[in-house]
Parts: sequence; C-alpha cells; structure tokens
Amino acid sequence: MSEIVPPTERTRVVREPQRGVYDRESIYKILDEGFVCHVGFSVDGQPYVIPTLFARVGEAIYFHGSAASRMLRNLGEGIPVCITVTLADGFVLARSVFNHSMNYRSVVALGKAMIVDAPTEKLGALHAFTDKILPGRWNDARQPNEKELKATNILRLPLTEVSAKVRSGPPIDDDADYALPVWAGVIPFHVAADAPIRDEGCDPAIPLPQYLQNFKR
Amino acid sequence: MSEIVPPTERTRVVREPQRGVYDRESIYKILDEGFVCHVGFSVDGQPYVIPTLFARVGEAIYFHGSAASRMLRNLGEGIPVCITVTLADGFVLARSVFNHSMNYRSVVALGKAMIVDAPTEKLGALHAFTDKILPGRWNDARQPNEKELKATNILRLPLTEVSAKVRSGPPIDDDADYALPVWAGVIPFHVAADAPIRDEGCDPAIPLPQYLQNFKR
Repeated sequence: MSEIVPPTERTRVVREPQRGVYDRESIYKILDEGFVCHVGFSVDGQPYVIPTLFARVGEAIYFHGSAASRMLRNLGEGIPVCITVTLADGFVLARSVFNHSMNYRSVVALGKAMIVDAPTEKLGALHAFTDKILPGRWNDARQPNEKELKATNILRLPLTEVSAKVRSGPPIDDDADYALPVWAGVIPFHVAADAPIRDEGCDPAIPLPQYLQNFKR
Repeated sequence: MSEIVPPTERTRVVREPQRGVYDRESIYKILDEGFVCHVGFSVDGQPYVIPTLFARVGEAIYFHGSAASRMLRNLGEGIPVCITVTLADGFVLARSVFNHSMNYRSVVALGKAMIVDAPTEKLGALHAFTDKILPGRWNDARQPNEKELKATNILRLPLTEVSAKVRSGPPIDDDADYALPVWAGVIPFHVAADAPIRDEGCDPAIPLPQYLQNFKR
C-alpha cells in the first residue's frame, strides 16, 4: 500500500464515498495515464475551466500556463486552482435509466499554482510533457532554445491536497429490476491512436521513428 | 453560416485568436459529440472542477448536479459556473519541441446554472442524456419513477455566453526548422468502443440490442 494523502474537507469524496481513493500510487497512475487536464480558476468571481497538457514530476503537476492567459495576469503569488484529470472508461447500462452510470477514474488536485521561473525546472517540465506522450521524442526533436524557454509559461501545483474517484465494474440495479428483460452491462472504451499522418513538408526519406511505430494508447 | 454568438470579454479567444469559433452550429456540434463535461465553480474562493455527463437541449446545457454536491449547497438563485467540453483529436509533432501541440476542439460556456425543478423538464434532460449516448436506450430501459426523478439533481445552463476553440491540421514549424531531419506530422486519435460486457446477472437469452451492435464513437 502506498502513502495515503489524508483527505481534507475539500478533497474527501462526499457523494458515493466508497469511490474515494486516497493513496499516492493510485492517484499518480491516473495522472500519468491522462494527457489533458482541466484547470479551474476564478477571475472576478467567474470560474473558468481550460483544457491543457500536463505532466506529473515527483509530487507536483506541471501544466502549460499559456492556455490560462486570463489566469496568469492575476497570478502574482499564486492563485487557487483546481486541476482535474478524467479518464472515461465505459458506459454502464443498468436496467433502469436512473442507475445508468459511467466507469471512470478522475483526480482532483487543489492548491495554489506558481509560475516556474528557473530555466532548468522549465526544461524538465517540457521534457516530461514530451516524453510522457512519446518516450524518445525529446531526444529526436529540436530542443528549446533560450528564447523559446523564456516564451513558455509553465505552472507548478504541488500535490498536497489531492484525491481520486473511481467507478468500475457492472451496473448496480434495484433488486426488483433484475427481473426486467433489459440488456445490462458495460460498454468499455479507450483512446485509440490512428495511423500517423506525415506532414506534407516532411521528407519521405525520414523514416517513421520507432516510438511512433509502437505508439498505442 | 449559422448564427454568431458575439464573444464577450470573457469568451473571446485571447491566445491564438485564429482558433476562436463563435457560430452556434460549430459550437453545438462539439457539444453534441462530447459526453463528459467539466463543471467549474467556486466555494469560499476555491475553484472546483468536476467531470459529469451532460446533454445539450436547444440553447441550453443540462448536467448532473449530483456530481457537484458541494456546489448545490451554495446554489440558491444560481451560481456562476463554467462548463468546458474538450475533444482531443491528435498529437501534433513538430520538428521543434516548442511547436509541439495538440489538435482539439473545445467549448467554454459561462453563466449561472439553475436547478431544474419541473418534472417534465427533468425527464426531458434525462431522456437527452440517455439517447445522446445510445439512441434507443431510453425506450428500452425502465424509465424513472417519481421518487427517482425527485432524487435526481439536474442543472441547466443557458448557452448565451459561449465560444469554441479549435486546432486542426499539421504542425507549424519555424522556417529554419523545416530542414531538420525530424519526422513531423500528426497522430490522430479517437475514442473507440470495445465489445460490450454483459452483466453476470443478465439472462443470456436477452439479445444484444441493435443500438449496441451499431455502437461506435
């Protein structure tokens, strides 16, 4: 069993509490499988939710701040954010409409996001973004120069207040409904990669890299 | 060309403005293809982002409020929310790390969400959730009774302040980088359904419904 992150009043799973997951290993596994997070922040009382790429490095999430330009203007010493990562695993078809559900794994992380200033930390985050999606790509592509590094906004959220919520398995129907002649079960799904599309400007003599031939999500 | 939703200061796409999409037809197409939305709201200055199922009906989004139990406690006359729907379409591999990107379509809708009280409107929203995912399922499964309808929290957000952001197509590299011997292009992906898993308690004599045999996302 990996370390438990004690839930706070804000991260304890209230509805369907049996779905709450609080150990770091399970939480990190979900974070490491997802590649898009949704960042929530407020400006003048209005919440915004913006999708962006992210990666976990150790006990922190790094994410592209460029997607949240509205937030950056107000960041200063760090502003409260919520980062949510959701993996949709399947539709759950019960005999009753009421008990229809979804199988999913999600992580909610709360805290104050800070702008990353140190160039080496920025570079590490970009490396993590790239190699998370395609291990090996970082060494193949041209790496960022100083100017590009300066133009990249990266934010860091420490994973101190974080929890996961997981639903899996078959539908749960009311006892009386099991007798109904209705098909019940799960339709699992996953993110599937299609054949890579070579850029028109890419010399056909350049072979498809090994890390793309093996690519599968 | 369908009706344009004039962007406000809050919904105009600021970064990469050429990716902003403001016509209802394009916005609705994205909403209707997605089945999970991320709902953002604030409680005591802390933003929360919660994934939940949703459907568009006419010029409004309906979503399960049960996922946002923290929000419901504070809803009253409607509280400011942001609903974001993101469809991830592919990784964009440029010659430089800096120009790596993602192809995606996302919608951001802002406004005040209201609890739906009228049973017919609630029923209509549940019907929309169900048939959006599996057209035909609503008539097959047992429909909600009065008690279940009362126990279901549905919220409505009018689509008055809404915009989309879309990136598609090949990578865009700096001029000098096109000469680099690096594979460049797009890895498209999509959500793929796997074979349905029949619930152990489901009589094998019940055939797989037609709407499941055809199911493909």
